[in-house]
Amino acid sequence: MLDYAKGEGELENWLISETAFSAAGLGKCEAILCLGNGYMGLRSSTEESYFQEKRNFFINGTFNRSQKNEVTELPNLADSIQMDIRVDGERFSLEVGETNDYLRQLNLKTAELSRSFIWTSPKGKILSFKFRRFVSLEHLHLLGFKVEVKSLSGKVQFAFDSGINAQMTNSGSQHFLEGERRIFDHRFLQLTQTTNESGIDIVHQMVHQVSRNGKEIDFEPEMDMERRKVWLNYSVDLQEQDVLTIEKLVTVHTSRDKENAVGGYELTKMQQAALEELKRFALTGYEKLFEMHRQAWQEKVWDLYSFNVESEKGIDELAIRFAIYHLTIMAPAHDERMGIGAKALSGEGYKGHAFWDTEIFILPFFIFSNPKVAKSLLIYRFLGLEGAHKKAAAQGYKGAMYPWEMAWPKDGETTPEWGDIDIVTGKQSKIWSGLIEHHISADIAFAVYQYEQATGDQEFMDAYGYEMIFDTAAFWTSRLEWNSQKERYEINDVIGPDEYKEHVDNNAFTNYMAHANLKMAIYYCRELKEINPEVFKKLSKKMDLESLIPEWREKAANVYLPEPREEDFIIPQDDAYLGLKQIDLSKYKNQAKVRAIYRDYNSEQINKLQVTKQADVLVLLYLLEQLSIDGVRKFPKEVKQANFDFYEPRTLHDSSLSTATHAILASDLGYQELAYSLFQKSIEIDLGEQMDTSDDGVHAAAIGGLWKTAVFGFAGIRMKQGRLTIHPRLPANWRSMEFNIQWQGHKLHLAIRKDHFIVTVEGMGKVAFESFGQMFECENSIQVPLGANLHR
Amino acid sequence: MLDYAKGEGELENWLISETAFSAAGLGKCEAILCLGNGYMGLRSSTEESYFQEKRNFFINGTFNRSQKNEVTELPNLADSIQMDIRVDGERFSLEVGETNDYLRQLNLKTAELSRSFIWTSPKGKILSFKFRRFVSLEHLHLLGFKVEVKSLSGKVQFAFDSGINAQMTNSGSQHFLEGERRIFDHRFLQLTQTTNESGIDIVHQMVHQVSRNGKEIDFEPEMDMERRKVWLNYSVDLQEQDVLTIEKLVTVHTSRDKENAVGGYELTKMQQAALEELKRFALTGYEKLFEMHRQAWQEKVWDLYSFNVESEKGIDELAIRFAIYHLTIMAPAHDERMGIGAKALSGEGYKGHAFWDTEIFILPFFIFSNPKVAKSLLIYRFLGLEGAHKKAAAQGYKGAMYPWEMAWPKDGETTPEWGDIDIVTGKQSKIWSGLIEHHISADIAFAVYQYEQATGDQEFMDAYGYEMIFDTAAFWTSRLEWNSQKERYEINDVIGPDEYKEHVDNNAFTNYMAHANLKMAIYYCRELKEINPEVFKKLSKKMDLESLIPEWREKAANVYLPEPREEDFIIPQDDAYLGLKQIDLSKYKNQAKVRAIYRDYNSEQINKLQVTKQADVLVLLYLLEQLSIDGVRKFPKEVKQANFDFYEPRTLHDSSLSTATHAILASDLGYQELAYSLFQKSIEIDLGEQMDTSDDGVHAAAIGGLWKTAVFGFAGIRMKQGRLTIHPRLPANWRSMEFNIQWQGHKLHLAIRKDHFIVTVEGMGKVAFESFGQMFECENSIQVPLGANLHR
Repeated sequence: MLDYAKGEGELENWLISETAFSAAGLGKCEAILCLGNGYMGLRSSTEESYFQEKRNFFINGTFNRSQKNEVTELPNLADSIQMDIRVDGERFSLEVGETNDYLRQLNLKTAELSRSFIWTSPKGKILSFKFRRFVSLEHLHLLGFKVEVKSLSGKVQFAFDSGINAQMTNSGSQHFLEGERRIFDHRFLQLTQTTNESGIDIVHQMVHQVSRNGKEIDFEPEMDMERRKVWLNYSVDLQEQDVLTIEKLVTVHTSRDKENAVGGYELTKMQQAALEELKRFALTGYEKLFEMHRQAWQEKVWDLYSFNVESEKGIDELAIRFAIYHLTIMAPAHDERMGIGAKALSGEGYKGHAFWDTEIFILPFFIFSNPKVAKSLLIYRFLGLEGAHKKAAAQGYKGAMYPWEMAWPKDGETTPEWGDIDIVTGKQSKIWSGLIEHHISADIAFAVYQYEQATGDQEFMDAYGYEMIFDTAAFWTSRLEWNSQKERYEINDVIGPDEYKEHVDNNAFTNYMAHANLKMAIYYCRELKEINPEVFKKLSKKMDLESLIPEWREKAANVYLPEPREEDFIIPQDDAYLGLKQIDLSKYKNQAKVRAIYRDYNSEQINKLQVTKQADVLVLLYLLEQLSIDGVRKFPKEVKQANFDFYEPRTLHDSSLSTATHAILASDLGYQELAYSLFQKSIEIDLGEQMDTSDDGVHAAAIGGLWKTAVFGFAGIRMKQGRLTIHPRLPANWRSMEFNIQWQGHKLHLAIRKDHFIVTVEGMGKVAFESFGQMFECENSIQVPLGANLHR
Repeated sequence: MLDYAKGEGELENWLISETAFSAAGLGKCEAILCLGNGYMGLRSSTEESYFQEKRNFFINGTFNRSQKNEVTELPNLADSIQMDIRVDGERFSLEVGETNDYLRQLNLKTAELSRSFIWTSPKGKILSFKFRRFVSLEHLHLLGFKVEVKSLSGKVQFAFDSGINAQMTNSGSQHFLEGERRIFDHRFLQLTQTTNESGIDIVHQMVHQVSRNGKEIDFEPEMDMERRKVWLNYSVDLQEQDVLTIEKLVTVHTSRDKENAVGGYELTKMQQAALEELKRFALTGYEKLFEMHRQAWQEKVWDLYSFNVESEKGIDELAIRFAIYHLTIMAPAHDERMGIGAKALSGEGYKGHAFWDTEIFILPFFIFSNPKVAKSLLIYRFLGLEGAHKKAAAQGYKGAMYPWEMAWPKDGETTPEWGDIDIVTGKQSKIWSGLIEHHISADIAFAVYQYEQATGDQEFMDAYGYEMIFDTAAFWTSRLEWNSQKERYEINDVIGPDEYKEHVDNNAFTNYMAHANLKMAIYYCRELKEINPEVFKKLSKKMDLESLIPEWREKAANVYLPEPREEDFIIPQDDAYLGLKQIDLSKYKNQAKVRAIYRDYNSEQINKLQVTKQADVLVLLYLLEQLSIDGVRKFPKEVKQANFDFYEPRTLHDSSLSTATHAILASDLGYQELAYSLFQKSIEIDLGEQMDTSDDGVHAAAIGGLWKTAVFGFAGIRMKQGRLTIHPRLPANWRSMEFNIQWQGHKLHLAIRKDHFIVTVEGMGKVAFESFGQMFECENSIQVPLGANLHR
C-alpha cells in the first residue's frame, strides 16, 4: 500500500505515497504523514470520516489534566479537517462506490499532503477529487486546505458541511470547557476552548472561499451551531466538467503562546487580533501562503540539514529525510517552555509526555545540526527542575529527581499509575516506571554534557547547565543506598532501560550513569569555580556546593560499578540477570509484531527470563565512551565486542528505542551487515508494512535513531575525549552520503565516499577532528582517504 | 421505510417495522424504537456503527454537571451494544455489500427489538443475521442481547469485539472519571464509572455465551483494555449452514439506586453483588430471562392499560399503544426521587430535564391509569420544593418558584443560558425561559389538584400536596406586581406557553393560572384546617399560613385577568398580541418541517407578528374547565369556540406540545374532522415520515398527548366539577375504542361504540359520572346510549 519510490527527478526519495485506500491503514498514515511545525501537530485524517480514524490535533505545551484521577496530558483540540460531503445526497466515502487512480502523498520537501482519485458514487456519479493541505512553517498559527472537485458525469449537487468541531476528546476524556462560538460576517468561524484545569484559552478560526471554474461563488452558506460545534452548510450545483474549488484557511492561537506569556493577555484581544489576521490571510489566499510555507521549508530545513545518500535502496535516503522531516515538525523551536513527547505531536500515545527518549535519542540530532533547538529543549528540562524537586521530595530524596514522564515543568511525575490488562489477573497492570525508573536524571545530565562539549556554549552552562548537573548529582547522593556488608553504595529496586526487568538491584546502566553524573558534577564544579566564581557563588548559595562536593567525591568513590566478568568481559545487566533462565528466543526475534513473547509469558514470568526488551548495557557503553571526565569508566573494544555479542542475541528489540544503539555499535565493531539490517529494522518501525504500529503516533526516538544510525553509525561521527571523531563505515550498498553538522559553532559539510571523505568548513575557522587514530585539522576543506582503516 | 401494518393476527397494530436499512433514518429509529424500563433507557443503536448514529444509554436520575460552565444533565453512560463484526476480515456494515430481506421491528407487546437480514459482503460471503434484544421490565438492571448468524456461502471466519465502552460523551461533554476495569474468570467484564461532580458510581457488567449449532464453544477470547474501555475479541470459524449464537447479558447498577440510598453503601459490595447476580443471570440464560420480561409486560402493562381501537387506519390503535409503550418505559415508577425528561430516556435533547410537559401532558395518563406512578412523579416535584425555594430566593421572590427545567430536586433552575445560532448576529441566542417562563409553578399546582380530585388520595395531600399548593401560591404573592395606575396586580415580562413571544406582559395563561393557584391555596387551606388541623398547624408553622391567607385573598381578588373582548369573546394572549401585525401564515402551517417561519424571520421579528408557536390561551381554557374551585373562572362554550376559531389559524404547532390540546378542544367543539387530523398530526411527530425530528429523542409530551387526545378528546373523559364526565365523540372512521381508567380508586373499563358506551366497574363500589348533561351511577356495568347527544 505504501510506496516510497514514486518520486522521480527532483522528487526522488522525497515522496511517501499511498497507492490504494485502506481503512485499516488510516491510523498509520495519519501518524507517519502527520503535518506540523513545532507549534502544532495535525494527524493526517481525511476530510471524510472513517471508523478506523483517530482525529488528533495538538498544540505543543497546552497540557491539561481532564479529571482529578487522570494524569496531565496534551489535549486533543477541536477538529477543523472534517468535511461531510454529499454527492446528490449520497455521503461521500471511499468505502462505498468505486475509487480509481488513488494517490495520497506526503512531499517531505514541501511538507504538503495531497490526495487525489476519481470516485464513482454508488448511484454512478463520477467525480475527480484533489485534496491538498499544509501546516505552515512560515506562519506558525496557520493551516491551509484546498479541495478541487470536478464533475465527470453530468450534473450533480455537491454539498458539504465544514466547520470547527470541539466535541473531540482524548479517547473519551474531555479537556475543555464548552466555549464561545461565533460566526462573523456569515463567513469567519470562531470557536474558543478553555482547558478545564490549566485554564488555557484556545481560539480556533476558519474561513472558506468557494469558487466554480475559477470564479468565486457569491452565496451565503447556511450557518449552524450545536454543542461544542459551529459549521457552515454549502451546496453547489455542478455541471459536467465544472470544477469546484474550496479553499479553507484555519488558524489557532492560545493564551499559552509565548507572546501572551509576557503580561497583558486578554482573551477578547487575542480573538480580535486573530480575526484580523485571518482576514489578511484570506486576502492572501491559499496558493501564496503555501508558497511562503514551501520556501520556509527550503530555507529553514533542507538548506540547513541537507542530507543525501546514494544507495541501492532509495528508502535509505528517504527514511533519513523522513526522520529530519519529523524531527522538524516535532520540535517546539519557538518556545523553550516545551519539550518533545514520545509520540511527538502525532498521536495520543504517551500523552505528549517527554521521556529519556528526548535526551538520548532525539537531542543528538539537534546538538549536531541545530544547537539552538537543542538548547531550547534543555532549557525545558532546566525549567523542569521545579518538578524534579517535587518528585524527589515526594519520594524522600534530595535534589533533582526528574520525572520519568514530564509534562508541565513545574509538576513532578506524570506517569500514569495503571496500564493495559494483565492477562492473568484480568485487572489493569501496574506501571512501575514512574516510581522506580530513575536513570533519567543521569540521562539529562549526560545531555547537558554532550551539548556543552559539542557547542562550547558557556552562556548556557552559566545560566542552566551547571545547575542541572549539580542538582541531578545531588539527587543521586540521596538515592544511593549504603550496603554495610559489602561496604559500597548500591541502587536497588529500579527499572533500567530494559523494561522487561522490574525491581532489579544494581542495574549497570543506572549505577554507571549515576556515577558519571556525580563525576560530571565534580568536574564542572571545579571548572566553574575557576572560570566563573560569581556563578559558582550564586549556585553554591542555592544548593550549598561546598558541602556537596565532598559528598559527591565520597559517594562516587564508593558506588558499586558492576565490573565486566573476568572470564568473558560481560557486564551483568543487574544483580540477577546473568543467573536467569535462558530460553530459545528465536521465535520472538525478528518478528514483525513486537512483544510477541507476551503471547507465551506474562510480565512476572518474563522478569525471570534472560531476555532483554531493548538496549541496556549497550546504551551504557555507547554513552560512556562519549564522556571524557576523569574517573568515568571507559571500556576497551574487547568489552564492547563481548557485551554486544552477548546481549544482541538476548535483546528482542521490543522497544522502538533499541535498534539504533545496536546498529551504531554493530557499525563500530565492523558488523556492517548487521548494522545495516538493524538500520532497516529501524526504518520499518514507522515505514514498514505492519499497519497498526504507528496508530498512537510515530516513534520519535526511533526517528531520532535513524539519523543517529546514519551519522553516528555509518558516518562514524562521535564526540570522544571532547573531540570530534569521524570514522565512516558506509553500508556495502551505499556509494556516498553527504550531510551537514555543527561542531563548536562551526558548520561542517561532510561528503563521505567509499574511499575517502571530505570535510568542508563553512566560513572562517579551523576544526580539528580525529579519524581512525589520526588527527586532522581542517580550515576550508580537507579530503581524508579511507582504506585499510575501515575495519580498525 | 417505516411500516406500521406488518403485524398480523394477534400482532395486528403491535409492530413498528423498518423495511429497509437507511443510514439517514438511524437517529429516528434509535429514538422511537428505544427500549427501557423506567430505570434505564437505551436508544436502539445497531450493533455495528454508523456515522449518523447517536449511541445513548441513560439511567434515570443520575444527573451530573460535567463542567462548571455547563448545566446539570443526564450523562450518556458506557455503551454495551456495539459489536465490531468482521467477516473474513471485512468490517460488517449495511452500507457496504448487499442487504436483502431486511426487517427491523419493535414489538410493543413484548418490548423486544429484533433485526434480521441476509448480508452479502463486498467479497461475496453470504450470511443471515438475526439480532434480538430487550431491556427487562422484570429485572430492572438487566439488558439482554442475542445474535444468530448463519453462514450461507461456505466457510467464513466470523470475528467480533464486544465489550463496555465508556469513551462515550454527551456530544463531547464527558461526565465520568476514568474508572476501574476488570475481567473476572476471562469472561465477566466489569467497568465502573463515577460521575465527576455528583459522585454517582455506575457499575456496568457483561457476559457472553457463544455457541455453534447449539453447542457452547469452549474457548477463551482475547481480553483487551484501553482507556475507558474493556472488551473481548472473539473469532469463530463457520462452515456452510453453521449457526453461531451469541447471547450477551448486561447489567448496570448505581450508587443512586434506591436500595443504596438508605445507608451502608459501599462500591465494592455493590460490585460484588452485581457480579454474583450476573452469574445467576448467565445460568438462567437469554430465553428464560426474556420470557420473564415478556410476562411482566403483559401483566404490568397491557393487562392494566389494555387499549383497543377499531378504526379504518390501524395506525390509530398502534399509535396509542406506542404512546403507552413509551409512557411505560419513560416513567421511573420505582423511585419517587426522579422525574421524566422532555425526551424521556431516548436522547440527549433537553438533557433529561423535566418541564411542564410532565404535569400538563404526561401526568394525566398516569393519574387516570396508574395513580401510583402519578403520585411518585408528584413527590419528585415535592422534593423539588428545595430547588424551587432556591430559584425564588435567587430572583428575589418568596415561596416555591419551580425551575423551568428541573434536574436534581435540590437544585434551582437548570435551563441552559445559551442556545442555537442567531442567524443575524452570528452568536448563540439567549435562552429566556429559565429566567422568565414562570407559569410552571401554577402548572404543578394544577397537577396536584387534578391528582387529588381524580384519586381522592388524602394521604398524599397531607404529606405533600397541600404544601406544594401553598408554597407555589406563596410564590405568586411575591411575583405579582402592583400597577398603582390601574389598581391591579399584573405579571409582566414573562414567556407564556407560546414561546414565540418573549418578554410579554400579562400573558393570559400565566395570569389566570397564577390566580387559580391562589384560589386553590385558599380552598385547600380552608379544607385542611377543617379536616386535619394537625397538618394545618405543622404547615402553618413552616410557612405562616395565617398571614398568607389574607394576602392570597387580597391578591387573588385584584390580579388582572384579561377578559374576553366584548365584541368577539377573544381573550388576548397578552397585552400586545391582538395589536401585532398579521401575516399570511399558510406557507408555514401544515409544513412537514417545523419552525419553517425561521427561514424568513428571526426571533425578534417573530416576536412582533400575530403568530403563535403552540397552544396558549387554548391550554388555559382546557385547564380552567377542570377546576371546580370557588372563584376560578369558567367560560361558556361560546368563548371556547371563539378563541379556538381565532387562535387555531394563528397557531403554527411548531411545538410538539400543541396539537393534542387543539385536538381535544376541536373534539369538544364538534370539529371532528379537524380533531382527527390534529390527532394524525400528533402521531406524525414521532411516527411520521420526517426522518430527523426525533433524532434528539422522542417527544414525551406529544406521546402523552396522543393518549390525552384519545381519552380526553375522543372518549370525552374529563374531570369537571370534581366529577367524571364522559362525552364520547369518536372520529368518523373509528368503530369503537376500549380502554381502562381509574377514578377515585376504582378501576373502570370503557367500551365506546358509535351509538353507545359501556362502563364497567371492576370489583366493588359505585361510580358516578356525567354524560352530556345526564348523571349516571354505575355499580357493575352500565350502557349509555349515544345519539343526538353527539354534537352537544
